[in-house]
Order: sequence, then C-alpha cells, then structure tokens
Amino acid sequence: MDIKGILSTCDHTLLSQTATFEEIKALCDDAIKYKTASVCIPPCYVKPAKFYVGDRMRICTVVGFPNGNSTTASKVFETEEAVANGADEIDMVINIGMLKAKEYFHVLDEIRAVKRACDGRILKVIIETCLLTEEEKIKMCELVTKAGAKFIKTSTGFSTGGATFDDVKLLAKHIGPEVKIKAAGGIKTVDDAKKFILLGATRLGTSRLVKIAKNEEAGISSDDENDETEEAAVPASKLSGAKVLSSADIVSKASEAGNDESSGVENKASENDDADGGSSWESVSVLDFGSDENDEVSAFDSLTE
Amino acid sequence: MDIKGILSTCDHTLLSQTATFEEIKALCDDAIKYKTASVCIPPCYVKPAKFYVGDRMRICTVVGFPNGNSTTASKVFETEEAVANGADEIDMVINIGMLKAKEYFHVLDEIRAVKRACDGRILKVIIETCLLTEEEKIKMCELVTKAGAKFIKTSTGFSTGGATFDDVKLLAKHIGPEVKIKAAGGIKTVDDAKKFILLGATRLGTSRLVKIAKNEEAGISSDDENDETEEAAVPASKLSGAKVLSSADIVSKASEAGNDESSGVENKASENDDADGGSSWESVSVLDFGSDENDEVSAFDSLTE
Repeated sequence: MDIKGILSTCDHTLLSQTATFEEIKALCDDAIKYKTASVCIPPCYVKPAKFYVGDRMRICTVVGFPNGNSTTASKVFETEEAVANGADEIDMVINIGMLKAKEYFHVLDEIRAVKRACDGRILKVIIETCLLTEEEKIKMCELVTKAGAKFIKTSTGFSTGGATFDDVKLLAKHIGPEVKIKAAGGIKTVDDAKKFILLGATRLGTSRLVKIAKNEEAGISSDDENDETEEAAVPASKLSGAKVLSSADIVSKASEAGNDESSGVENKASENDDADGGSSWESVSVLDFGSDENDEVSAFDSLTE
Repeated sequence: MDIKGILSTCDHTLLSQTATFEEIKALCDDAIKYKTASVCIPPCYVKPAKFYVGDRMRICTVVGFPNGNSTTASKVFETEEAVANGADEIDMVINIGMLKAKEYFHVLDEIRAVKRACDGRILKVIIETCLLTEEEKIKMCELVTKAGAKFIKTSTGFSTGGATFDDVKLLAKHIGPEVKIKAAGGIKTVDDAKKFILLGATRLGTSRLVKIAKNEEAGISSDDENDETEEAAVPASKLSGAKVLSSADIVSKASEAGNDESSGVENKASENDDADGGSSWESVSVLDFGSDENDEVSAFDSLTE
C-alpha cells in the first residue's frame, strides 16, 4: 500500500460557498500533481475547470446539493448541464423528506432520472446518514442498488455530521455487489481513515490527503500545521514512499473509469481486489494515514469551534 | 402595533432537509390561520402546496439554496419551474465566490436573470452576510439595488451565522429606496427582534412567531416550552391583542402585493409608514415580541449544542 493508491481514491474537494475560481484552479493543479481520482467542485466552476484541466483530471460536481429538497426536474437539469459542461462524475443528494415520508418510489425514480441524465458518467448518491434512521439507511441501500448508481455516499459535509464506522459497515452489508461506498465528512484520525477503508469505503471526499502530501514534500511536519491538519496526525514515514503516475497513466485510467458504467461493467471487486499492486486507478484497501473531509465539513467545523 | 401586523411580516418557514409534505401542510394551515406574509418551503413542495392552499396563502421558495454556487442557468431553471408551480416569491442565494473574486458583473447579471425568470413575482436576494466583509456587503447593496430586486435578505440560516444588528443597519444605509430588508437567522430575544425591525427589516424569515401565537392560544406560557422557544421570551400580554384578518382580506392583500413589483410600484415606504393602523398587508415598524429563525438555522443550531 503506497500513497499513489491512496491519493487515487480521493475526490479532491472544494465545495465552500466562498471558493473562487483561482482557488479551484489551485485545487486542480494539486489534483493533477498528486493524481487524485477527481476534483469535486461547485457546479458554477465545472465549465471553466474543464477548460482549464482538459483531459488531465476528472471533474466531479454536485447536484441538489446539499439539502436535496429541490425538484427532480431541477436535479436532472443540473446534471445535464454539468455533463454538457464537462463533468465526469455527479454526486447527487436524495430527497430526504420524501424518504422520511416513505415515498420510496419518488426517491428511486429521482435517482433513476438523474442516472439517465448522467449519460454514462459515474453517479454517487448522497444519503446524508446523519439525518437517517438505521431503517432508512438500509432502505437507501436497496434503492441505490435498484437504481444502478455506482456509489452510495455517506454525507454532504454540510449537515449535522459525517461518516461513521457503523454507517459504512451498515452500507457495506446492505448494498448490492455493484455498488461502491464513498465516505465523506468528519474523518478525524489516521486510525479512523484506515477503518473506513477496511469497512468498505473505496472513495474519500477530502482535500486533506493532498495537503498532507504537499506538506511532506515541503518538509513541514503535521505538527507544524494548524489544528485541522493536526487531526490527521500522519507519520512522515508513511508518505515518503509516494510513487507518481504519469499524466498519461491518469488520463488512460480515467478514461477506463469513465467508460466503466456506460459499458455496463460495474465491478465493485475491481476496487478491492487490487490493493497490493496499486495499479488499478481506484484500487486501495488499507490507508496508512488519516484524512479529513475538511472542505466538505467546513460548515460544521466552523460552527463547533 | 398589534400581532396582526407582526405576523404579516413573517415568511413562515420550513426548509429543513427532512421536512415531509405532511409537515408542510401543517405549516400552511398555521400560516393561513395566523395570516403570515407567506410560507417559505423547499422547491420540491411548491406544486403540491399550491394545490393545497390555492389562493389562501402566498408561497415563497428558495433558489440556488443554500450554497449559491450552482450555475446561473440552473438558478433560472429553478425559478421558472417554481413560478410555473405556483410560487409567489423567490429567495435566491447569490454566487458568493464570484463576489469574493470581484466578478461583480456575474453576480449582477445572475440576479437580473433570476429576476426576469420571476416574471413579476417578488425576488429576495440572500447575500449570506456572515461570510462577507463590510465592503462586500456594501457592494451587494449596490448590486441588488441595480438589479431591481424587491428585497435584500441577510442569511440562509444554513451557514455560520444569521442576521446581526450591524448588518441590518449597514444594509438599510446602503440599499436604494426601492429595496426592502428581510432579516433571517439567529434572532434570539424579543429585544433583538424589535431592534431588527427598528433598524429597517420589514420581513422576518421565521416560524417562531406563529408558534408563539399558537402557544398563547393554548394557554402555554413561553416558560413551559423548550430552550429554543424560551429564547423568544414573549410577554403573554403582548399577544392577547391579536386581531385576525379574514381570508378574503389576505387574498386581496396578497394579490396587491403580488402585483406590486410587476406594476413597477415598488414603494419601500409603504411598509414603514403605515405601522399604526396595521392595515397594510406588509406594514409593521416595531415588533413587541421576539422571533427566531429556528427552521432556517436548524443546521447550525444542532451543531452548536
């Protein structure tokens, strides 16, 4: 397990309301340099970011985000526009109120409608676990599986909490074999991150890992950083073995991944079975250091200080 | 100043991610009974709520909410759909990142585009004061005035803070004479609420006032309520003078208000100059009791517990 594989699981994320395009470009630069799975950015920046990165990085954006209580038609519109603007991956939020009301067909139908609008791009379905009962989480595993989405994602990072061990464990138990798990929000320590991966998460929504890698390069120890970075507590030794894929590798892998869903080849095992070699674009099974979804939890981080 | 005038300033609000249509119907029932200015509800419920209330209550919904970093096209789509579904008022969130980057034309152009899509309905522009510098707040007064929006609104209630006295004072000083102020988020005491109104706010995004009125009817003192309601600390004597407008009055007034913007008659003074009589649908100058934007601040309330 080396850092290459670990960084390749990250959706390098900046969804803050205040983010400028200069910040998004810096995020893209880092994502390209450190070979993350994608950049996850606000919808308003997808088009210029695509122009900026070309084929050097996959672009992920969000739909119905973060509250999920917009209309199905608007979620479909947002998705179609994002795809037209160059998005490779769509992270949509379910209609949580409809789930609470047991309007399961509405919830399912909406995911299916957005999936159609994705036109073969990867769809991740954010269920906002912190607001759901166990019964509702299990129901969402069923609906996300039925809808044929690629990922179930724990959290927006803009509600009352992020991923928990119990949640990821629960999702791993109840999703179908074709569905993967993205953990996001509130991962606070190295051990937490390892455990999330061990429990079945194959993507992490975060910007923490790239920051750690950057600090490592610059010879800055985690201890010199602010509180947020300290939480990650990464041993320097774990980062020194980083191997860097070429841009061509990334583009090639990204292209494969991009075709994955549209070609009907949705193989969850492909992410988990290739952990040692690290050659698969999304492969990783155990993280050797911590990460934190700091951008996606900016809202509640700043509130709980 | 009686409670009739005070309730008529309230956008009776439920924007929680978990809200069901049953809860929205109850909100509408209360809004009709207590003659609020509108119900402010998630976009996914506008169509059924309009079917439910008919012409008995105005419907307000939100666009680009709460983060504001969706595309202009999607904000326009959301607005057009909301209007087609029966919305009378649109509360849009500006693109805060673009403001930070001093992309003022983008911010202005977006407000204008949404205003066109409103097709005469009331447009409120949420600037999320808690994330802005004083310079940015003043700039937004200029842009909202230029765009011809009806209201500038302080907060979504889903970020790091709500309205402050200084903010409302600042907005009142810098907006044009046709622009009104809606205060939302974080109003904690009776005195706070009075002061917000005195400083120039003519709408309050809240569900607190209706709850207080209901409790008063049921003979429940504020002291019997939970912490949240206790914060309002309303003297019972202030609520006993409630006068109730007939539904016909409301519909008539609502109709006037609905035509206000489209007819080009945008008279800010009409809200402020008629405080004693209370006969104007939106008129009020001094609140005699507190309110709190509890629904719009659910995200950070739950996080700071």
